[in-house]
Parts: sequence; C-alpha cells; structure tokens
Amino acid sequence: MKGKYIKGRSITYDGSQLHSLYAFTEHDVQGDSVVAFRGPCRVQAEGLVDMEDRKKGAEIYSEDMVHFIVELFDSDLPRTLALQRLFLCVVKDVIEELKPELFISRRGDDLYIEVEVDEGQEESRKLTVSVATASPVSNLIHIGINVSSRNTPVPTLGLDDLEIPVDDFILKVLQGFINEMKGMESARCKVRGVG
Amino acid sequence: MKGKYIKGRSITYDGSQLHSLYAFTEHDVQGDSVVAFRGPCRVQAEGLVDMEDRKKGAEIYSEDMVHFIVELFDSDLPRTLALQRLFLCVVKDVIEELKPELFISRRGDDLYIEVEVDEGQEESRKLTVSVATASPVSNLIHIGINVSSRNTPVPTLGLDDLEIPVDDFILKVLQGFINEMKGMESARCKVRGVG
Amino acid sequence: MKGKYIKGRSITYDGSQLHSLYAFTEHDVQGDSVVAFRGPCRVQAEGLVDMEDRKKGAEIYSEDMVHFIVELFDSDLPRTLALQRLFLCVVKDVIEELKPELFISRRGDDLYIEVEVDEGQEESRKLTVSVATASPVSNLIHIGINVSSRNTPVPTLGLDDLEIPVDDFILKVLQGFINEMKGMESARCKVRGVG
Amino acid sequence: MKGKYIKGRSITYDGSQLHSLYAFTEHDVQGDSVVAFRGPCRVQAEGLVDMEDRKKGAEIYSEDMVHFIVELFDSDLPRTLALQRLFLCVVKDVIEELKPELFISRRGDDLYIEVEVDEGQEESRKLTVSVATASPVSNLIHIGINVSSRNTPVPTLGLDDLEIPVDDFILKVLQGFINEMKGMESARCKVRGVG
Amino acid sequence: MKGKYIKGRSITYDGSQLHSLYAFTEHDVQGDSVVAFRGPCRVQAEGLVDMEDRKKGAEIYSEDMVHFIVELFDSDLPRTLALQRLFLCVVKDVIEELKPELFISRRGDDLYIEVEVDEGQEESRKLTVSVATASPVSNLIHIGINVSSRNTPVPTLGLDDLEIPVDDFILKVLQGFINEMKGMESARCKVRGVG
Amino acid sequence: MKGKYIKGRSITYDGSQLHSLYAFTEHDVQGDSVVAFRGPCRVQAEGLVDMEDRKKGAEIYSEDMVHFIVELFDSDLPRTLALQRLFLCVVKDVIEELKPELFISRRGDDLYIEVEVDEGQEESRKLTVSVATASPVSNLIHIGINVSSRNTPVPTLGLDDLEIPVDDFILKVLQGFINEMKGMESARCKVRGVG
Repeated sequence: MKGKYIKGRSITYDGSQLHSLYAFTEHDVQGDSVVAFRGPCRVQAEGLVDMEDRKKGAEIYSEDMVHFIVELFDSDLPRTLALQRLFLCVVKDVIEELKPELFISRRGDDLYIEVEVDEGQEESRKLTVSVATASPVSNLIHIGINVSSRNTPVPTLGLDDLEIPVDDFILKVLQGFINEMKGMESARCKVRGVG
Repeated sequence: MKGKYIKGRSITYDGSQLHSLYAFTEHDVQGDSVVAFRGPCRVQAEGLVDMEDRKKGAEIYSEDMVHFIVELFDSDLPRTLALQRLFLCVVKDVIEELKPELFISRRGDDLYIEVEVDEGQEESRKLTVSVATASPVSNLIHIGINVSSRNTPVPTLGLDDLEIPVDDFILKVLQGFINEMKGMESARCKVRGVG
Repeated sequence: MKGKYIKGRSITYDGSQLHSLYAFTEHDVQGDSVVAFRGPCRVQAEGLVDMEDRKKGAEIYSEDMVHFIVELFDSDLPRTLALQRLFLCVVKDVIEELKPELFISRRGDDLYIEVEVDEGQEESRKLTVSVATASPVSNLIHIGINVSSRNTPVPTLGLDDLEIPVDDFILKVLQGFINEMKGMESARCKVRGVG
Repeated sequence: MKGKYIKGRSITYDGSQLHSLYAFTEHDVQGDSVVAFRGPCRVQAEGLVDMEDRKKGAEIYSEDMVHFIVELFDSDLPRTLALQRLFLCVVKDVIEELKPELFISRRGDDLYIEVEVDEGQEESRKLTVSVATASPVSNLIHIGINVSSRNTPVPTLGLDDLEIPVDDFILKVLQGFINEMKGMESARCKVRGVG
Repeated sequence: MKGKYIKGRSITYDGSQLHSLYAFTEHDVQGDSVVAFRGPCRVQAEGLVDMEDRKKGAEIYSEDMVHFIVELFDSDLPRTLALQRLFLCVVKDVIEELKPELFISRRGDDLYIEVEVDEGQEESRKLTVSVATASPVSNLIHIGINVSSRNTPVPTLGLDDLEIPVDDFILKVLQGFINEMKGMESARCKVRGVG
Repeated sequence: MKGKYIKGRSITYDGSQLHSLYAFTEHDVQGDSVVAFRGPCRVQAEGLVDMEDRKKGAEIYSEDMVHFIVELFDSDLPRTLALQRLFLCVVKDVIEELKPELFISRRGDDLYIEVEVDEGQEESRKLTVSVATASPVSNLIHIGINVSSRNTPVPTLGLDDLEIPVDDFILKVLQGFINEMKGMESARCKVRGVG
C-alpha cells in the first residue's frame, strides 16, 4: 500500500475520482494506494454511487475538504467496507491524538464531533463524508473530511474550526492507515489454521 | 450476526474454543455469531495459533477475562482481520463512553491504557489479547479483555481496575459489533459500481 | 432474502429490470431479494443478455406474465445458475401442489407442460422464460411465467389456461424460494469440514 | 463432470467415503465426479459431519441403499448446497418419470413419499439422507436413497417398496445430474453482464 | 478449453476483439477458448487497455500478425496473468522446437529474438504484443505475434523473417496451450491438502 | 515475495516441509516467499501429496537436490498450478542461459534434458520433481532439481552432470521467479476492464 499527498494544489472532488486507476493515470501511483489531496467537494446526482443518497436527492457539498482515495486491487466489497470503517477509526485516532479534549464519535462510516450548543445541551456536527464501491478491476473508497464548515447542507465542523493543521493531519492519517494495512498483512502470514 | 452472552458461569479459554461450530455445538447459536463468556485464560504452546507467539514461547495467561468468540461463515482471512481490528475499535469506543477520562490506544489488534506511573511519566498497560484464523468451514476471532490484572505475564490492566461493570460492558460491545456488521451489510447493498 | 409482491399494477418487463439495485431503487427492498410483479414481457434484441438468443434473433414476448427478479449480493454466476434452476424447481412444486393432475417437466431453466394434442400424441408447451447474469455489484435472475398464452412466438401455456390463481401462485413461490434460501443458509452453518 | 456406477459389489457407506479424492483413489475417477454404488449405510457419531445430527445423537442406518458421492473441485459451500438440492430435484424427477402415480415431495435436502395409511389420512415416509461439506481441496456431497425400508430408525420407504428397478434408477440419475451440470456450464458462457 | 483457428481470411485486430463472448458471438466457440486468426494489428489510444501504454501515447501497429484471443470464464486476473505468461512460454517452446538455432528470451509478457547486428554486438528484436484484462463475465488475453516486421513502431522480427510456417506455428501453439490447461486441470484433481 | 537461500547446510526434504508457515517457523521468512535449500530428497508414501504417485507406490528419492518451497497466502490452487509451471519455465530459462548448448524440454511440471545415447538416438533424462497443494491458510509448491543423478529410481540428470554451479543457479532462479511475481503484480494494476 502506497501513500501519496498531492500537495500544493486544489483538486475538486466531483465523484469522477472514484474510478479505477485514478491514482495511476493521474498521479503515477501504481498498485494498492491511498492518495490524499485538498479541494472543494461537489458531487451531483449522477456522480453519486450511494443510491440511497441519490433517491433522497442528497447533495454533497463542501467549500474545502481533505480527500482520501483508496484503491485496492485484491479486495472484495465486504472487506473494503470493513477497511473503510477502519480508515475512519484511524482518522478518529489522529484527531484524538492532536486534540485530546474533543469528543468524537464514529457512527458507521461517519465521524461526528459533539459540541455543547447551550448549557448542557449537545449537538452532533458532521465531520466527514464517505463511500465505498467496486470497479471492474479494483475496489475504491472515498473519505472526505471538512476543512471548512461554511455553507454545508447539514451542520458540520471542519479541521479549521478544530484548529487542526491540515498538512500534519493528512500525513498522520496516511501513515496510520498504511501501518494498519501492513499490520494486517503480517498478521495474516503467521497463523496456522484450526479444525 | 447473532450475539449471545453465556452469563453466570465461568468458562476457561484454553484455545479449544477457537474451533469451527463452537457456538453451535456448545451454545446452540447457529450462523455468523459472537459469543461472550467470562473466565480464566490459559493457552499453552500447542493451543496457540499465532506461530510468532509460539516461536517466542509466549504464555497467554489471565486469572479473569471477558472472552468474545466471533465466527464468520462467509469471510476470508483478509476481511476477518479487518473485522478483528474493527471489533477492537468498538471495545475502545465502549470504554471511552463508559470512562471518558481514560486514554486508550489501539496498536494493531491490541488495546492499551496509558497510565501515569510517576510525575509526568507514562506507561502502557495491555488490556487485551486477540487472534484471528481460518477453519475449513469458517473464520474465527478470539478477543480477550482482562477483568483482573493480577499475575499476568506482562503489565496489564483489567476492567476491575478501571471500575467498568463487566456485564454492562459485554452487552454494549455485543450490541456495538452487531450494529457494525448490520451497517456494513446495508452499505454493501446500496452502491452502484463505477468504471 | 426478502420477498415483495408489487401487487395491483402492471409493470412491463423489457430487460431494464435486470439491473443492479432495481429492487432498491424502484421498490425500496434492500439486500438479497426476490421481487414479483405482473405485466407484459417485451424484450428486444439489445435488451437480451443471452447472446445465443440474440444471435438467433429470438424475440421474447408475452401479453401477460408473472415476473420474478432475484438479486443476490454475495453470489457468483456458477452458484446463481444453480439457484436459478432451484427456483424453477420451486415453481414446478407449487404448480404440482395446486394442480396435481398436470405433468410438468423442467428442462434446464425452462418449464414445459405436456399436453395431449391428439389421441395418444403429446406436445410440450413452454411455460417460462429465464436468464441469469452478473452486474458489477450483484447477480441477477429473471424468471417469467406466462399468465396468458395468446400471441406468443412459440406454443405456450399460461397460468390462466391451467386455471391457477395468479396471486396465490406468486405468494407460494415467494415463500417457497425464501424457505429454500433459509434452509441452505442453515445447512451451511452446521457441518464440520472433512479431510 | 464424470459419472461412474460401481456395479456388482456392495460397498458400505460409513462416512469415510465423504473424503477428498475418494473417487480418484478408490475408483480411478479424476476431476469433478459423481460416483454411485449400492450397499448398507451405517454412520456412527464420529462419522457424522452434520453437527446437529451429532448433537441429537442421531443414527444413520439402512440395510440397503443407493449412494451417490459428488466431488467438486471448483465449488464453494454455498454453491454446493444449491447443487445438492438440485441433485434431489433430479432424483425426484427420475422417480416421477418412472412412477407417475407417486406423490413425492422435497423438503430441503430430503425426499418424502406421501402414503395413505388410513382412509384419507396421509403419512410421509423418508426416502433419502444427504449432507454436503468441504475438504481442503474440494467440496463433497453424499446422497443416499433407501432401497430397503426394513429396520430404519424412522419410517422410510425404499426403491424396492416403490418397485423401481435400482440399476435403471441409478443410470437415469447419473445422466440427469450430469446434464444439469453441462447445462449450467453452457448457460454460464453465453450471457453478457448488465449494469 | 477449446481451440479454433479461423483460417483463410484476414481479421484486423483493433482491440474490439478483447471483449467478452467474442469467440461465441463471432466464431461460435462457447466456453473457455483460444481463438487464433491472422491479420493486421491497429490499436488506437481508446482501444488500449494497458493504461501505461495509453499514458505514454504508445501505438500498437503491425502489418501482419498472428493473433490469439483467450477467454476464461472461471479465472481471476492474478491467475489469468500467470496463464498469459505461460502462453508466451508455449510460444517460445514452439519456436525453439521449429528453429533450435534461434535465441529467444521472454521478459515478462514479451518475447524477443536476440540478433547479431554487428560483429559481436547483439540487439533484441520484439516479436510479440500482449495484454490481459477482465470483462464483467470473463477474463481475456490477447497475444499477437508479428508475421511481418515492416513499418513497426519499434525494431521487431516476424515469423516470416524467421522462416517459420504460419499455419503450422498456429496449430502447434493452440495444441500446446490446450495441453497445458488440461495438465493443470488434472494436477489440481489429484493432490490432497496439507496442514 | 521474499526469497531466501539457506546456504551452507544440508536439509533433507521429506515432504514435511510442504506445510503452511514452514518458511516462517523454520527460517523466519514471513509472507509470500520462496525458500531454497540443498539436501537429499526422501519422500515416503505417507508424505506424498500427489495421490496418483501414492497409488502407483512411487518413490521420490535423490541423494542431492536443490529444493525450492514457495508459499502463497493469497492464491488458490488453479493459480498456484500456473505459477508452478511458470517457476519451471524460469528454471529452464536459467539453465538455457548458463548452458545454451543443452536442449531442455518442459512437459507439464517436469523438466527433461534430451541426451544423445547412441548415434542419432535420443533419450530424456528427468531433472526435476514438483508438486503443488493447499493448506488451510496458504498454497504451497515444492520444486526439486537434481544435483546428483546417482541411484535415482528413474534415469535422471543433475546439475553436477551439467556442470552448472549450484549456488549461482539457486540465486538466478530466486531472482528470476521474484521478478516474474513483481511483473505480474505490476501488470495487474495498470489495466482497465473491458465490456
């Protein structure tokens, strides 16, 4: 699993990046990979792969996000969905490490920050969007984390609101997920079978 | 995925429970399942499925543990390893929810509690043991969480030390993991493929 | 496996229903499913998935049919083809139960009724059409059973000719196939491996 | 798929035949195969692969049976279970063809004959035993059909009671199942994918 | 695995032949197959399945080639890639048998002939092009072997330069590869599993 | 894929090395691997995994051999059998490179050297033994190449007879096969799917 952060330029995520060989054709990264970049997020109906969102007429919009595109060539969808959630656990761990005072909760493939809005009353603010699917030759995951929370369709928070430095965050997440993948590869090659 | 807590009696985990159809033959739970019980843990060399542990002559011993045995009939080892780590994320989330003041970290398939041992100096105490493997007809995961930390071969902490009520903990973990599995099953059946 | 009968309205089967997530996007049924509806059948060359039919320039046409669309998210084509034939066995069993005096025969994935056309001379009348294929995220089966036998391209019989009540038939077939799937799921989770 | 009938000698089925490469090592049939033989059936607790039967302390006993052992080198258990039921549909079809007056019903992987025991009162008599499982290199199915119904642990019927000639029956079943397998192989290689 | 040589007419390979069911729809060969034909090769950017070639703006052009299209219905890409290289080993073996004095080398999925261009100085001339990929219902391999070496974009050699009779070559390769496939099928069905 | 040559000591191959995690437990090589060593070969009936050999009462015996044990954690038997043959192609290529004057032929998973025994009369001498099989957690291949040809059950040749330096041969084969695996991994991650 290779990681690459496309630094220093803005790439708008519009759904077309969730495509087989995106990392290879656009960024010269071949094989299992996680590519990170930063930019707005605008996915319209026909770009949605989650048909539940599409039925609901959901919009996915953010002015500024960190995007991770994971591509796996030897995976099937049930495994990819488990890895997608594990990726979000890594994101949660990185934020907890950087900002121990925050209370983050993962619900399925979404992360929320609990904020006190009024004395004693809490509200959940959405931090992420994510989806996983299959191409004919690989499996793909998109994870987007808000940098800005302005003008989003639902109440959100972004890394800027949390005062988390974006570049540092990206590198820690890349490293963390690559370590997970290495750890599992190693675990797989040291157990005997049972009856 | 069915969950069952075998309450009110002590079952010693000695490795023989990591066997296909254990849930069915011993506890009448058929199909994908997670079975929980409580009791000592004593796994000797020949019971170890982790050959790295066996080479090192590792001992697995605990006076009192909570044990979870997961059996999956439609999984392969790469997916099972991702689910094993996701299970540990659920355990971490449950402890964080019950004891928000603790600092827990997951390193691969192990959970640790960071404790201050001396002014400003921290030490990691191991909370769990875990392994995943394959039988000819299913995949299996064992996750053990210390209740007691007495007489363990390495420095550990247990649920008793953390003042976490065991039965409540078990039920929350069972529910949390079953929800994960349901969520992924649902996610899998609502996405279209991409190019 | 969920079953749903879309009762009280006519839906024309034109091949576009043999598409991933049809049950979810059109009928709100998520996951492994069998959806039943009634209506004409008109599949033109470009809608055919059976390339042998297409080469032959075959037409699929019926004025009134019962349609079943099965979608399976964890299957591959060799298994789906076995389930397709098993579905036709269930259809045969239901007709035999409702009309014990009929002689039905299954040849591959087709059902025929043997009728006496002249003294001692028998002829086979086709009762069904069926095909199974793969989408990028699931496997799909279409089974169509004639209600009417008017104007079909080959000699057929329909449920009306056999005086079989359509609604009752549909519900019995849905129940029968769902029971098969449950039975196999259970059988799978109770056998040990062998050497 | 090759078929072979080991004619002219009695082979007792005791469970040890449900083993990978039985057809090859004992009968020189290599590859996907269905081997038929005749003889008593005596499977004791440790020979049972169905753990539900074993838990119940079930006995499998018959003085005289027809046995079919199917071995599949490219199958997984979910597909093999569908093929097992399809095999029983073939057995049912063969009996219906030979004895159209009988009323046979398949319930899961068992065949029953409905007999009138008293005026208007019907009883089901079991005709078959069957199980499917996995070895490390193949999948295996055993189907046993009673020839004799004497001294069986539950009320049964046998081919002798039904006046079905055993050799003819065996050859028709072998041919029928091999045709099913060929038909599915052909169906698999003529469909295009869908969206 | 069936083999067919479409003799006596020229078919231009333009990439559209690397499509599921090409052998069935165009040449009436159903199931796993290798189809051979002869004709020019002209694959333009959009016909390329190798995205590395496409990025480089590579041209694939030959005035006269022997083409083999392999289609496999039960394979996945990792196995298909091994079979692709094995096919090239068969081509190498056939040429070595016909022209023992040549020095052919395989580098990955390409064959080269080493020729002496100047006293003591050797140069490699490319003999083949090849690619393997997946369709929704099968896996596909194209192997093209130059007959002519005129006007190719890189220095090549062709069967004509080597004085190898084309028809004889095609038949020997077809037979050789079919034998490999049969041999592996047989090897697979005679080994027991290990611990 | 990691390669390791256990140099400087003799290890007798008796079949017990064809066992999951042999490389890890005996030689500290984890993951997909090819381990090479040198020593006698003595496999008795119960150690044979090729049941055809066992039925024939075949002996596998050599006074001195080079042994390669390949272990693959993500392969199935059909792919492993293709890789086994590809390994033998690599062995053939290495010998051809070291001794261009020899005529080696591969027949399935065996290599032979053609030698002139009498004027114009040729005889084949066997150079190798090989088998591939599955464990519950991995696939395994053994390839043995004679160093000595003394006292073998069939007429053989060995590397000593061919004056091939053993250490050099081993390193070239290891490198060659690892390159094949890398090349296929790379090929797999650069092709788009087709229709």
